[in-house]
Amino acid sequence: MFESTKVGRTVSKEDFREQQEELRTELLAAQRDLKDSNVPVIVLISGVEAAGKGEVVNRLNEWLDTRGVQTFAFWDESDEERDRPRYWRFWRSMPARGEISILFGGWYLTPIEHRFKGHCTDAELDGELNRIVDFERMLTEDGALILKFWFHLSEPNQKARLKELSRDDRSRWKMLPDKSKFSEQYAAFEQVAERIIRHTDQGSCPWYLIEAEDRRYRDLTVGKTLLHAIRSRLAENSAAATPAPERVWTPELPNSPSAQITIIDQLDLSLALERETYQQEMKRLQSEINELAWSAYNKKRSTVLVFEGVDAAGKGGAIRRITTAVDARLYRTIPIAAPTDEEKAHHYLWRFWRHVPRAGFMTLYDRSWYGRILVERVEGFASHPEWRRAYAEINRFEEQLVESGIVMLKFWVQISDEEQLKRFKDREATPYKRYKITDEDWRNREKWPHYREAINEMIVRTSTRYAPWTLVEGNDKPFARVKVLKTVCDTLREALKRTPEPITGYLPCGEKRV
Amino acid sequence: MFESTKVGRTVSKEDFREQQEELRTELLAAQRDLKDSNVPVIVLISGVEAAGKGEVVNRLNEWLDTRGVQTFAFWDESDEERDRPRYWRFWRSMPARGEISILFGGWYLTPIEHRFKGHCTDAELDGELNRIVDFERMLTEDGALILKFWFHLSEPNQKARLKELSRDDRSRWKMLPDKSKFSEQYAAFEQVAERIIRHTDQGSCPWYLIEAEDRRYRDLTVGKTLLHAIRSRLAENSAAATPAPERVWTPELPNSPSAQITIIDQLDLSLALERETYQQEMKRLQSEINELAWSAYNKKRSTVLVFEGVDAAGKGGAIRRITTAVDARLYRTIPIAAPTDEEKAHHYLWRFWRHVPRAGFMTLYDRSWYGRILVERVEGFASHPEWRRAYAEINRFEEQLVESGIVMLKFWVQISDEEQLKRFKDREATPYKRYKITDEDWRNREKWPHYREAINEMIVRTSTRYAPWTLVEGNDKPFARVKVLKTVCDTLREALKRTPEPITGYLPCGEKRV
Repeated sequence: MFESTKVGRTVSKEDFREQQEELRTELLAAQRDLKDSNVPVIVLISGVEAAGKGEVVNRLNEWLDTRGVQTFAFWDESDEERDRPRYWRFWRSMPARGEISILFGGWYLTPIEHRFKGHCTDAELDGELNRIVDFERMLTEDGALILKFWFHLSEPNQKARLKELSRDDRSRWKMLPDKSKFSEQYAAFEQVAERIIRHTDQGSCPWYLIEAEDRRYRDLTVGKTLLHAIRSRLAENSAAATPAPERVWTPELPNSPSAQITIIDQLDLSLALERETYQQEMKRLQSEINELAWSAYNKKRSTVLVFEGVDAAGKGGAIRRITTAVDARLYRTIPIAAPTDEEKAHHYLWRFWRHVPRAGFMTLYDRSWYGRILVERVEGFASHPEWRRAYAEINRFEEQLVESGIVMLKFWVQISDEEQLKRFKDREATPYKRYKITDEDWRNREKWPHYREAINEMIVRTSTRYAPWTLVEGNDKPFARVKVLKTVCDTLREALKRTPEPITGYLPCGEKRV
Repeated sequence: MFESTKVGRTVSKEDFREQQEELRTELLAAQRDLKDSNVPVIVLISGVEAAGKGEVVNRLNEWLDTRGVQTFAFWDESDEERDRPRYWRFWRSMPARGEISILFGGWYLTPIEHRFKGHCTDAELDGELNRIVDFERMLTEDGALILKFWFHLSEPNQKARLKELSRDDRSRWKMLPDKSKFSEQYAAFEQVAERIIRHTDQGSCPWYLIEAEDRRYRDLTVGKTLLHAIRSRLAENSAAATPAPERVWTPELPNSPSAQITIIDQLDLSLALERETYQQEMKRLQSEINELAWSAYNKKRSTVLVFEGVDAAGKGGAIRRITTAVDARLYRTIPIAAPTDEEKAHHYLWRFWRHVPRAGFMTLYDRSWYGRILVERVEGFASHPEWRRAYAEINRFEEQLVESGIVMLKFWVQISDEEQLKRFKDREATPYKRYKITDEDWRNREKWPHYREAINEMIVRTSTRYAPWTLVEGNDKPFARVKVLKTVCDTLREALKRTPEPITGYLPCGEKRV
């Protein structure tokens, strides 16, 4: 695989000077066009030791307008990062649309290091690489342009370069945080690198293997590759700008009466609780959830609760029964409304990653990422391919949360059509409830057949072993609230008894500390 | 001072139930109105041990719609917080307009603890309290509503409460991170508390001393105070909505020719560098700044560089000479354009606090908070009182940065009227520079008399010992670039030789670690 990076490609000083001038002008122009596009650009910089990765990045920053570029080195993990799922730090480094992030190593750093040091097996490495493939595909499908550069040196060249660096007292390289000495076992390192590159080399975001011996050749090649990639992507975009035939989505369930029955129809909405039982239960559960929240804090286990449901189903009421019981220092409620402009400039999951709690805390999402496959699907805010792939994206997102030790619960609160109508009318009649009901709520009622199918599919596709949906019969508010609280208590109590285990064959991470 | 908190005020169970019902409805209504206003609400919770501060906050969260409320406890400082100026964590907790932040202790926690433990003198404490007064005034002048609650108990009542708590195995109180036992020296603690309250009790954000013995009285009083404060503020706002007579700002310099001379007029814009000297100097300086940046990284000293100047003065060029020299992993360029909607929902300094670098890194602001007293003043985006008070606000902001160990430099790049005209025309004539020139640039030229005075006043009022302005003669680009780089190198080199010292008599903070 690396043969082509050992052929001794060079660029003369004069050629470099000449080509640089042109390249630079074109890169700046491309960057300006990029600015007006909806494409975020991610440049990953990897390679063998002493290949001059830092030099390349400095060159790029010299050529580009640094106002649209941010560089991220993943040296030390801060404690705010350690206390969250592993990928949180990468989400923090995501460029907005029209901007460029240059990432040193990025998500490849840990896998390379772990495998090379023998901290994981090939099979475990492959599991992690699958995750990476999924992650990158998700980003590219959302419109991101990802360029992955691997800089390579032959063994004698690397030896020479290292010697040269060690002679220079003031070499930057010596001041860098110490990474394991990958160079001492050249062949073994190359083997790991090959496995990783092979496994993650996708059409939509290929690796570029670059010979790093000649600095001029190396830098020019990177610059030209970047320029070409940006230009091609922008050309593609404007080609696609001719409106595609609109695909209207209609309910897809087979037309036979029995196929029309959804999971939601099977809920027994007549379930109810007597007032006295309700008060007793509530008292007991609220006291317990407070204890559990403190215990989770001490054990550094986080909790993520997701609340979804039809309009007026009583999500807010259920949330309040939890928040009034738990110490206010331990939880945060995130109400999901229209995204801010910063949020709109990123992948739709970015705004939820922002709020993932630090270890020990609880986050309640009042509506959530499921908007993608509910309202966005039904209203057509997300295109058909967008919401279709969201199921897998969401499952992987939740998998990462749970894997990092987060206890996760999702509630769907359902009420009958008649009950909803009753509550709507009640809201209209009560002065201090009137603000809760809008014309849109009424419109949504008319779209119920569409929602019905979307909900059914959501539950089928995203109720996973590690993040199951709890369906809540909501016609009787006391019953619904007790069911929610009881589920949270039971799950949290059980979860705190044991250490979380990896869900799949992913990398057993050294930095995992639950 | 605390006598009024020891008179045994109580509320009966029935009264509580009755009043609570009404209070709650009204609080929710007030919160909805707040939502549509431009008022951020900060509720500070302080007081003696065992007064039930956590209980109060939970009650507020029970009464309010938690979707507009965030609670912050300042337990452990994360390393991302420790690596920045002390107030960074408070800026992170600032509510957006229309929302409420509840802060446990907030900026009072450290002063109380330090003085009580004898880590600082009364005089030092007073210095810190002056800062707090300034800080709070800045927020209230910007429209924030700040409520500061102090919960108090008599000595026997506190003793009894502590005993009661210690008997309860499951008391939340016992699970809280250990704070110094303020209760063991009741009188001494009361004395410190009194000094702090007395010193920081301002008309625009007064302290509310509340007797905490009877829980019902305590909670009802807090709720009513909050309701009344929000209602009054919203009423004030709508009263003020009648348009105030517009104050048009005109240049204010006395009309005599000699009074019209500004600092800027004294710059010798004929200064220039020969090509050869330029290249030599640049090579030397770029190499040095890279070394210095690495050295600053190793010593955990941050650098903040601010670039301001007239249009086409060459700010960008000067910035590039730095960024191409410094390792891309060590700096970040923050171009200041129109604020995002999240930024608009906060105090104007909030967006700059967001980007304050972690210890060891460099941030280059391409335009900055000085927009407030330049473009916002001249264009009337900020009102007369707003930009008038910005001088002091900015000085205090910069003081905090420098005090935390940040090396700070501010550059004003100036060119002559003729040179600007030449560059504008050149930009219009060169295809790849054309995007740099807009109609607005031409319009700004016409406003030069206004800018001239604003710039002069800015330099006079904000050139401080700890954050001086460097005026750069910009007609000759090589000269300007070398001057900027040389100033950065000289300052950074000197700064790295010594440990930063406190600027004023502020609190010598235990957490200071430069």
